[in-house]
Amino acid sequence: MTLEDLKTLIREVQDFPKEGINFKDITTAIKDPNAFQYIVDQLYLKYKDKGITKVAGIESRGFIVGAALAYKLGAGFVLIRKQGKLPAETIKKTYSLEYGEDIIEVHKDAFNENDVVLLHDDLLATGGTAKAAIDLVREFPVKDLLVNFIIELSFLKGKESIASEQNIDVDSLIVY
Amino acid sequence: MTLEDLKTLIREVQDFPKEGINFKDITTAIKDPNAFQYIVDQLYLKYKDKGITKVAGIESRGFIVGAALAYKLGAGFVLIRKQGKLPAETIKKTYSLEYGEDIIEVHKDAFNENDVVLLHDDLLATGGTAKAAIDLVREFPVKDLLVNFIIELSFLKGKESIASEQNIDVDSLIVY
Repeated sequence: MTLEDLKTLIREVQDFPKEGINFKDITTAIKDPNAFQYIVDQLYLKYKDKGITKVAGIESRGFIVGAALAYKLGAGFVLIRKQGKLPAETIKKTYSLEYGEDIIEVHKDAFNENDVVLLHDDLLATGGTAKAAIDLVREFPVKDLLVNFIIELSFLKGKESIASEQNIDVDSLIVY
Repeated sequence: MTLEDLKTLIREVQDFPKEGINFKDITTAIKDPNAFQYIVDQLYLKYKDKGITKVAGIESRGFIVGAALAYKLGAGFVLIRKQGKLPAETIKKTYSLEYGEDIIEVHKDAFNENDVVLLHDDLLATGGTAKAAIDLVREFPVKDLLVNFIIELSFLKGKESIASEQNIDVDSLIVY
C-alpha cells in the first residue's frame, strides 16, 4: 500500500451532502483492511515520538481512525461531540456555519495538565469545526496540542485559517 | 487492569438521556490509556481466531472500540449509521423505538460473500438497534456474523431477544 494506492480507494460522491460539493468518502478505504492499517500506521509513525497522551476525535468520522490511532499510540481517547450527546458536565463552544451556527462540547474531566493532545478528524475543509475544537481543548491547561486530518482540501485554506491565528502543528495524510 | 478495575472506571449518570435512565458512561474508561488498551485487548483475545474480516460499528459510540478492534484484528471497518449520513447508495432498515421509529443504513458495497463480520456497539439494552443492524448485515451474503458489546444490561433481556430469533454468537465484556 502506498499513498497513491490509498487515494484510489477514496470514493468521490457528487452533490453530497448538498449540491456542488464533491464529497471525499473514506468508507471505501477503511473497509479495506490493508488501507485501514496503512492509514493508522502512517499516522502512528508521524506521532509516536510526540508523547501523545490523548487522542481527541471529532464526532463521528473522527472517532474511527482517531480511536485506532489512540490504541496504537497507547493513548486515551476523548470524544468531542455535537451538543446534547455527552452525558456528564461539559464545556461548550459555539461556532459559525455557512448558515447559522453549531455547538460542540467535551466533558469537563476530559483533559488535565499532563496531557499532550492530538486532535483528529477525517477531513479539513474550511476549518470551522476544527478551530472550535482547538478552542475547546485550549480551555484546559494541557501541555501541548497537535492537530491531524486524514484528508485536507487545501483550496479551502483551512490549514492557513487554523495556523494563522494559533501557533499549532497541523498535518494531513492526503492533501488535495 | 482487571475487569473489576474497568468497572470502577465506568461512570453512572442519572437521568440521561431522559429521566429514570441510569446511563453507563464509557468515556471515563476510554480516556484512560490502560483501560482503553484493556477493553480492546480483551475483545481481541476473544475474536482473534474467528477469522473476522470486517468489524461493523454502530454509530457513533460503536465506532470507537470497534475501529480500534478492527485495527488490532487486521480487519476492515464498516460504518452503520443513522439515515442520511452515508454519502453513497445504502441499504436501510426501519425499527421501532419506545415512541416512533428509527432508520439505520449501511453502504451497498460494505460486505461481500467472503466476509466474517463482527458487529459491535458499546451497549446492549433492549436490543432494538442491534436487531436492526443484524438484519441489515444479513441482507448481504456474508459467511458468518458475530455480535459483541462492551456492556450488557442483562435485566433488559436484549441478548435473549437477539439470540432467540437468530442463531447467533452474542457476547459482552461486562454484564450488569
